[in-house]
Amino acid sequence: MTDQSLPKGFRAAGVIAGIKKSGKADIAIIASDTDCIAAAVFTTNKMKAAPVLRGIEQVGSGQPIRAVLINAGCANACTGRQGLQNANKTAQLTARALKAKPAEVFVMSTGVIGVQLPMEKVTAGVPLAVAALHADGLADAAAAIMTTDTVPKTARVEREGWSVSGTAKGSGMIHPNMATMLSVIVTDAQVSAAVLQAALKNASKRSFNRISVDGDTSTNDTLLVLANGASGVKPTAAEFQAALEDVCISLAQQVARDGEGATKFITIEVTGAKTERMAENVGRTIAKSPLVKTAFYGEDANWGRITCAAGYSGEDVVPEKMSLWFGGAPQVKGKKNTGQVHVFAKGMPTRYSEAAATNAMKPHDIFIRLDLGLGEASATVWTCDFSHEYVTINGKYRT
Amino acid sequence: MTDQSLPKGFRAAGVIAGIKKSGKADIAIIASDTDCIAAAVFTTNKMKAAPVLRGIEQVGSGQPIRAVLINAGCANACTGRQGLQNANKTAQLTARALKAKPAEVFVMSTGVIGVQLPMEKVTAGVPLAVAALHADGLADAAAAIMTTDTVPKTARVEREGWSVSGTAKGSGMIHPNMATMLSVIVTDAQVSAAVLQAALKNASKRSFNRISVDGDTSTNDTLLVLANGASGVKPTAAEFQAALEDVCISLAQQVARDGEGATKFITIEVTGAKTERMAENVGRTIAKSPLVKTAFYGEDANWGRITCAAGYSGEDVVPEKMSLWFGGAPQVKGKKNTGQVHVFAKGMPTRYSEAAATNAMKPHDIFIRLDLGLGEASATVWTCDFSHEYVTINGKYRT
Repeated sequence: MTDQSLPKGFRAAGVIAGIKKSGKADIAIIASDTDCIAAAVFTTNKMKAAPVLRGIEQVGSGQPIRAVLINAGCANACTGRQGLQNANKTAQLTARALKAKPAEVFVMSTGVIGVQLPMEKVTAGVPLAVAALHADGLADAAAAIMTTDTVPKTARVEREGWSVSGTAKGSGMIHPNMATMLSVIVTDAQVSAAVLQAALKNASKRSFNRISVDGDTSTNDTLLVLANGASGVKPTAAEFQAALEDVCISLAQQVARDGEGATKFITIEVTGAKTERMAENVGRTIAKSPLVKTAFYGEDANWGRITCAAGYSGEDVVPEKMSLWFGGAPQVKGKKNTGQVHVFAKGMPTRYSEAAATNAMKPHDIFIRLDLGLGEASATVWTCDFSHEYVTINGKYRT
Repeated sequence: MTDQSLPKGFRAAGVIAGIKKSGKADIAIIASDTDCIAAAVFTTNKMKAAPVLRGIEQVGSGQPIRAVLINAGCANACTGRQGLQNANKTAQLTARALKAKPAEVFVMSTGVIGVQLPMEKVTAGVPLAVAALHADGLADAAAAIMTTDTVPKTARVEREGWSVSGTAKGSGMIHPNMATMLSVIVTDAQVSAAVLQAALKNASKRSFNRISVDGDTSTNDTLLVLANGASGVKPTAAEFQAALEDVCISLAQQVARDGEGATKFITIEVTGAKTERMAENVGRTIAKSPLVKTAFYGEDANWGRITCAAGYSGEDVVPEKMSLWFGGAPQVKGKKNTGQVHVFAKGMPTRYSEAAATNAMKPHDIFIRLDLGLGEASATVWTCDFSHEYVTINGKYRT
C-alpha cells in the first residue's frame, strides 16, 4: 500500500506557510472536485480544540464537504473564542480560494497547544495551497501535516473501479478513545452516509483505537472520511468496510511504528477472551504500561510485567488460565505457529529457555500473544517501546 | 517525623540473607511482644502474589498477628502452588524462631516477579532476623525492604502516651488502587478492630492511593497496620485516624519522592471540584500522564498537557471554568498564596510571564494547582517526573 495516488476527483497539496519553526511545509489541503458525504470520529477529550468543536457541528449537520484544510505547527487548542474565530476564518479563506462555501470546508490543526493561529501566515498560505492542488499531491499533504513524525504516512487500497486512500499524522499523545492523531481518508466509491458512518465506526475501532504510544488522549484528534462517488461504482457495505479497515489499520500501524522515540514496533495479540472488548482492554492495558514498554526497549523478556498489566486491566482474568508467548506471528486458523517461546502457563513461568525468549525481543518488530483461556474472542493491539529518546523529545517539546 | 523509634512492645530488625544480588540486607522483621489486631489493604491486581493471597485470608479471618516477615529481592509472584507453599513455609520458620504460631505471622515479598523464593536462604536468614530483633530496629527493617528505592522510608507521630510508626518501600510499579508498595505501620494505641479498619481505609485513600510513579499496579502491594494496645491509652477514633493519616501521608510522599529515576517531587492540588472523587480522578490522571511527567523533567511549564490530561480524566470538566497555577504552595483557608503564576483561565492561557512560569518549574519540589470552578471539593495528589534514568532503570531491571 505504498502507492500514493488519490481516488478519482480528489486532489491534494502541501505548502510552506511559515507556521512551523523548522520552515518545512505546514499547510495541507485535500479537495474534491464535487461534493462529498462525510463521516468523522473525534477525540473524547473534554478539552476539545477549536477545529474539533467546529468539525463536530459541521459533520453532525450532514453538510456536504468539498475540502479539508490542515495546518501543522499550532494545534489551535485552549484558545477560547479567538480560536474558534480563527478556525472559521481559515475555512473562509479556503472556501474563497476554492470558490466553495465556508461550511463546505473542514479544518484541522496539530502542533503546540495554547497558542493562537498566526493568521497572517495562514492567510498567505491557504491560497498557495489551493493553487498547488494536484492529483498526485497526497505525498505532499502527508508531509505537511507531520509534527514529531519522522516519516509521512499514507495508505491506499484499490478495488475494481474504485479505491480508498488516506494519510495520517501522529507520534505522541497517542492513545485509544479516538485520541490518536489527525487522519483524512478519501474514496471515490458510491456509498450512502449511513454505510460510510457505520464503516468508519467499525474500522476505527479495530485500527486507530487499538494503538497506544503514551496513553495520552489529545485535544485535537480527528479522523475524517470523504466519499465523492466519482468512480460510479457502488460496493456492498461489507466490501467498503473491508477496504476502509485495511487503510485504517495500515495508517494506525504506521502511527504506532513512528511513536515518539520508538525503537520497536510491538504487536500484542490477546486471544481466548470472553469478548472482543475484554481482549481489547487487556491488550490496551499492556500496550500502555511504562514498565512493559521500557522492558521492550531494553530487549528484556520480562513476562511478569505483561501478566501483571493484564491483572490490573480491570477485566476478570484468571492467572491460572493464562498463557503467554514471545515471538512467532499472529495466529492463523489451522496453521502451526513457529518461533514462539511459551513463557507462562498455569499461573507461573514455564521451563522456557531465557536465551530463546530474549532472542524473540531482538527484532525491530516484536510479536507477543497472551491467551486468557476463557473464551474464543480476540483482539490485536499495536504499540511501540518507551525509550530515552521519548523522554528527550517530550522534556523539551516547546523549546 | 524522622525519629525511628517504635511504639511500646514492638521490635524490628533487618539482616542479610543473600536473596538480593547486591548482598545488602534483604530480610526484615517487625514483631510485637503481644498479640496485635491487624488491618490491611491489598493490591487490586487480579494477578496477586502468593503472600498477598495468604495475607487476604489471614487478615480476613480476624486472626491476631504477632509479627510480619518481609523479604526483598524476590516478589514470590506468578509462582503458582509452589509460591504459596513457600509463603507458608516462611511463616512457619518465623513462627518457630519466635515461638508463635504460623497463622500469627504475616509475610510480604518484593522484588523480581516469576522466580521462586530461594528457600535455603530464607531458612538460614529468618532465625538471624528474629535473633536480631530490637527496639531500635525500625531503620534496619526499612533498609532491608528496599529494592530500587534510593533511601529508606520511615515515619512516626507521637501523641500523649501512644505513637504510630511505619516504614514503606516502593519506587516503581506505583499507582493508586492500593497498588503502591509494601508498608507496615505499628501502633501501641488501644483501638478496636473496627476503628483500625475504618481508619486505615480512610487514611490510605488520602495517602497511598494519591501517589503515582508510573501508572503500573503491582502484584504484591500491601499495607498492614498492627495495633498491640501496649500503651494502655485509648484515643478516640478521630484522633487515631488523624495520627495514622499523618504517618500514611508522610510515607506515601516519601515513596513518590523516591520514584524510579525521579528528579522532581510534584504536588498537584485540584480544587473547585464537585466531589472529592472528581478532584482525585483529575489529579491522578494528570499525575499519570507521561507527557506531563516528561515536561516536569524538562522544567517546561507546558500547561497545555495538564489541562489536556484533565480533559481526558473521564470527569465532566468544563475548560472555560478551569484555572491553573504553577508555583506557590497548597491552599490554606483565609491565607493569601504568594509566588503562584496564573497561567490558564476561561479556556485559554492568561497573559502570564513565560519566565515566571518556567521559574516555578526550577525547584526540586514543584507545586501546581488546578481549580475546576465547579464546586468546593478538593484533593491533593503526589507524583514525580519521568526521566531518562527511569527508562534506564526499567529497560534492564532483571539484568
